[in-house]
Amino acid sequence: MSFETVQIGLMPPADQVSADNLQQLVAYAQTKGFDYVVSPINSPGYRRVLFEDAGPQSPAMMAWRAGQEAFKPDDLVLRTADHSDFLVGTLSDWQDFDSQDAKVRLHSELALRQQLNWVSHLGLGGIMLPYPPASQPLANYGRVLTGALSMLPYTACWLKVPCMDEELEQGVAEELQGMKSWERWNSLRNMAGSESKLGVALEFSGALPTDQVLDRWFAEPIKAIILPDDVFLTNNKGYPVLSKRHQHVVRKFLKFKPYFLISTSTLPKLTIDEFSDDSLDQILASPHADYIRYLHRTQEQPNVIDQFATGYQDFLQAPLQPLQDNLESSTYETFEKDPIKYQLYELAVEKALRDRPVPTDGQPDITVIMVVGAGRGPLVNCSLRAAEKAGRNVRIYAVEKNPNAFVTIQNMKAQHWGDRVNIVFSDMRTWKAPEQADILVSELLGSFGDNELSPECLDGAQKVLKPDGISIPANYTAFVAPLSSTKLHADVSNFKDLKHFETSYVVMFKAVSLLAQPKPIWVFEHPNRIDIPMDQDPLSNHHNIRSGTMEFTSKTSGMIHGVAGYFESVLYKDVVMSINPATHSPGMFSWFPIYFPIQTPLFVPAGAQVVLDFWRLTDTRKVWYEWRVSCQVAGVGALQSSPLHNVGGRSSSIGLF
Amino acid sequence: MSFETVQIGLMPPADQVSADNLQQLVAYAQTKGFDYVVSPINSPGYRRVLFEDAGPQSPAMMAWRAGQEAFKPDDLVLRTADHSDFLVGTLSDWQDFDSQDAKVRLHSELALRQQLNWVSHLGLGGIMLPYPPASQPLANYGRVLTGALSMLPYTACWLKVPCMDEELEQGVAEELQGMKSWERWNSLRNMAGSESKLGVALEFSGALPTDQVLDRWFAEPIKAIILPDDVFLTNNKGYPVLSKRHQHVVRKFLKFKPYFLISTSTLPKLTIDEFSDDSLDQILASPHADYIRYLHRTQEQPNVIDQFATGYQDFLQAPLQPLQDNLESSTYETFEKDPIKYQLYELAVEKALRDRPVPTDGQPDITVIMVVGAGRGPLVNCSLRAAEKAGRNVRIYAVEKNPNAFVTIQNMKAQHWGDRVNIVFSDMRTWKAPEQADILVSELLGSFGDNELSPECLDGAQKVLKPDGISIPANYTAFVAPLSSTKLHADVSNFKDLKHFETSYVVMFKAVSLLAQPKPIWVFEHPNRIDIPMDQDPLSNHHNIRSGTMEFTSKTSGMIHGVAGYFESVLYKDVVMSINPATHSPGMFSWFPIYFPIQTPLFVPAGAQVVLDFWRLTDTRKVWYEWRVSCQVAGVGALQSSPLHNVGGRSSSIGLF
Repeated sequence: MSFETVQIGLMPPADQVSADNLQQLVAYAQTKGFDYVVSPINSPGYRRVLFEDAGPQSPAMMAWRAGQEAFKPDDLVLRTADHSDFLVGTLSDWQDFDSQDAKVRLHSELALRQQLNWVSHLGLGGIMLPYPPASQPLANYGRVLTGALSMLPYTACWLKVPCMDEELEQGVAEELQGMKSWERWNSLRNMAGSESKLGVALEFSGALPTDQVLDRWFAEPIKAIILPDDVFLTNNKGYPVLSKRHQHVVRKFLKFKPYFLISTSTLPKLTIDEFSDDSLDQILASPHADYIRYLHRTQEQPNVIDQFATGYQDFLQAPLQPLQDNLESSTYETFEKDPIKYQLYELAVEKALRDRPVPTDGQPDITVIMVVGAGRGPLVNCSLRAAEKAGRNVRIYAVEKNPNAFVTIQNMKAQHWGDRVNIVFSDMRTWKAPEQADILVSELLGSFGDNELSPECLDGAQKVLKPDGISIPANYTAFVAPLSSTKLHADVSNFKDLKHFETSYVVMFKAVSLLAQPKPIWVFEHPNRIDIPMDQDPLSNHHNIRSGTMEFTSKTSGMIHGVAGYFESVLYKDVVMSINPATHSPGMFSWFPIYFPIQTPLFVPAGAQVVLDFWRLTDTRKVWYEWRVSCQVAGVGALQSSPLHNVGGRSSSIGLF
Repeated sequence: MSFETVQIGLMPPADQVSADNLQQLVAYAQTKGFDYVVSPINSPGYRRVLFEDAGPQSPAMMAWRAGQEAFKPDDLVLRTADHSDFLVGTLSDWQDFDSQDAKVRLHSELALRQQLNWVSHLGLGGIMLPYPPASQPLANYGRVLTGALSMLPYTACWLKVPCMDEELEQGVAEELQGMKSWERWNSLRNMAGSESKLGVALEFSGALPTDQVLDRWFAEPIKAIILPDDVFLTNNKGYPVLSKRHQHVVRKFLKFKPYFLISTSTLPKLTIDEFSDDSLDQILASPHADYIRYLHRTQEQPNVIDQFATGYQDFLQAPLQPLQDNLESSTYETFEKDPIKYQLYELAVEKALRDRPVPTDGQPDITVIMVVGAGRGPLVNCSLRAAEKAGRNVRIYAVEKNPNAFVTIQNMKAQHWGDRVNIVFSDMRTWKAPEQADILVSELLGSFGDNELSPECLDGAQKVLKPDGISIPANYTAFVAPLSSTKLHADVSNFKDLKHFETSYVVMFKAVSLLAQPKPIWVFEHPNRIDIPMDQDPLSNHHNIRSGTMEFTSKTSGMIHGVAGYFESVLYKDVVMSINPATHSPGMFSWFPIYFPIQTPLFVPAGAQVVLDFWRLTDTRKVWYEWRVSCQVAGVGALQSSPLHNVGGRSSSIGLF
């Protein structure tokens, strides 16, 4: 399914679809503009395989159990592979996998397998699996599904899950209505492991859960949204529409590009009666489907970040290693396109320049700006523009260690900058500057602030700064939050080694849910006049060690698959650059968040505390993070905790050289 | 350390040992018959490296931080490698790894690393690590330990843990005193992962925890027991002895072969004054050490099971595959030595024979006994002895499929059995018997009862049985219990693949703790006249599917590393054979328990429920188990759960052919 279209299916009541009316139903749905039809695979009569009255030695039952009996024609609604690309099959719902009766359990499982075999034979593109009522245990159903789904490598498998609970549990707040339904899904999915191919067909109802409960679903594999026709309202013109709340929720799920299913409580009239008064209505496209297409068409246009992010969503990228590796031209190219980041830098330099006193002693008004890590020169351009706006004279040094980027700034100097800019080919940490700077400008931040070694680079560079000189950025703060994302965890799992669970990834989040809002965990300030003697190099890097323990309360239950990291940076005074969701600089796309996975997902009960322990550590050669996630709940104490991840930087680190 | 000796150390108060008296202390301890001395590595003066009054740019501090300053002689108690094989070093205890003050945290860590480097240089055989008071958080200490222990590949590292809590938490029952101490250890160990080399030196006190709290420690790597001298009482003759309760607990820990440490509150008088009145006392061995040696000498003699088990304890064995593989002669040899098992079989057959009515119609009194899976013939011998005791005539068939074992029973027939026994070379499931049997005797049970396919074999064999014939065994029941064992989990982890986590192992348990008593989960009865038509083979094996969900309450907190499995079998009427701990047949050693691991250990809070879901499943070629462990707690609901293990028998199964 492309971004441009939305697939909408018709889902009539299963007990009214039969082998006799299937052809008509398909023709009707095609006429009404549906993209597919949901049909039961088997007729209700197939329930005979429970052999309810048969004794254990009944020959017919024993033969069926032994797989010696094929479907009878009467057992089936879908008897041929005709229209199999237009059909999603539903499995029969009389099975009871967790019955007290061993025969019912066994025959439910054997019937499921017989049905899945038939689905595979027909080549159906998708099936919908039943969801046992909340009163029933799930363990055996979970086991059966986990084992059986491998029978269908090419078929989409959706579990039909209601978004509201059948009834609210005693003692559970009404605002948590719907949480139980997620917990039951979660329990089934956990049995299967996060690599399972099981998807969710989320069934809407008249009332919907609160946003915080719905939010859990954003970390799950939502493949379809089921909209019962009675959820629609009728507008003034007699057309079906959704309530504001339903519209809001449907729009939120659109990013998953789900299939939509319009479920009806009665079978529509399948024959088109050309002579009736409403024959026109009958041949027109379904107004329900039209309405969903309208919502899809009118969804918020992707903003510049979304456009940029297309193709990156939920894709795990290794963070840059700017000291070990030289960035490629295309990397510079990408980041230089950010419309916001350089505006903020320009504003910060401009404000800093305006704040500089004009010499009154007759000395020339020259501000020395050093751009360290100049790359292909964007911060030099910012500084030149800022100087022009502020009406101040500047002498700029552009220091860059990457020989390839240096070629570009040589050209820039020759063609644009001229004498105002001195270009220097050097590592900023070892450069012997000919004079001291008033302003040190750098763009060394990673998604977590300090994760591309901005602290270490600026510590080495700050000796070129005058005692009253300033650094842009002035500081940066790392933020963390417990994160749920089946998708990201499964992708890390797929590497099948510890190393990848102990590595952080830069990711444009899509199918994720934060269990609580991000909190600041540590900060770096520049220049660092406290730990580093004036005009000297730091003797060790211990002052750049950081650690923090943050507690979060998760109002709903949830699964933790790792930690989301962000940064906020004060460039200069009130000029703040942020990727922390609460303060994100609008339209800035240079940084995606960072994801620290954990090896085994942790379940958090509603109301429990999530504790994140984080360390930024260092030795003489590298910097690395270690992390650990644990849970606790009032009245019970500690719950499960993860082991310490990335001990001693054994799996991932950032090289200092 | 061999089984025959016990190592006992002297542990004087750390602040009274110095470089000046170390030589004397060593000489004293040798005189008093101690095997080693516990000494601080550093003098109290080493605390100087906290640089408490120094500013961040203090040159001395910066040099020390950068590793540019070695120990000064005054810093050290252990200045040379002299006696390093007689010394266990203790680390200084002024460090505060979780201080609010970043400098204290950093310097504590650097000091620890400096000390460990020195330990490695000296080649000390063991060190003792401090245990932070319960009021302090542990996260950073756990991180520091996890990272630092890899510096000491050849040194035993013991964490000194008090067995009682410093103070009882509000709302915690007094009988759970000591649990918090275990939980803090567990928290540290979990950070390091179960593969950590960290051991426990458990410090006893006057009061001791209840057995159920102490039991948790049996699943942990207990390396040493610290006995303060004031824990000893003085008996009538003036000698130090332990209370009954302390004796009981010490004896329980003897199976771990721990080192013992006698800690003293004051430094003993180190010089032997030859002219004093008590000079004899002074040169005699320590009475405290003597007493521990006495307890060790008088520990319960290993019974026949223990003797048999030596070398098997905590050793993971793959269960037998008797249908796929032919047993080796030594396997038969081992199991035939069981003094109890064949007594029970003989008794069962004797009782069954006595219960048989003597024909009154003049027919000859002959009972047909068929021994299926006769191996090298032990059950034939049992049956013959039973017939003699019961005074009944028997005609015995010995059926065996293993050609190698068949050689032995051919000799047995020739030399001992004669015409009373017919020997048949066949798989019992396919044998066409010349007549029908009154009694079918088999020994096909595995540690979990049905795990060596006794149900399938007897289902195939029962067609030779008369309608009123009996099977010995008549039934068998599998038992499960949640199990804690750091050792077993680490051993499975060492294989570094999923397959080994989804395999069951036969293990003679030692370093384990059951979180609750075993419960029966399913049963098999023979002959099975319900599911299998008389005189026929079963058409499928579905009737041998079993499943069960068992709930257990863990009174104390604990870690689940998997599931322990056992069986109980009724051979005939009141003749029961069992390896379930509550009913274990005394002296029987043919079966060790079975261990089903789980991939990620689960933490169980005190009072929580552990739920075990178990399945015995089958297809046409094999039988396998699937399992899953989850936790829940009243008022909170579901906690963490394991994924489903061994889905579809993907990692382990028992072949039917």
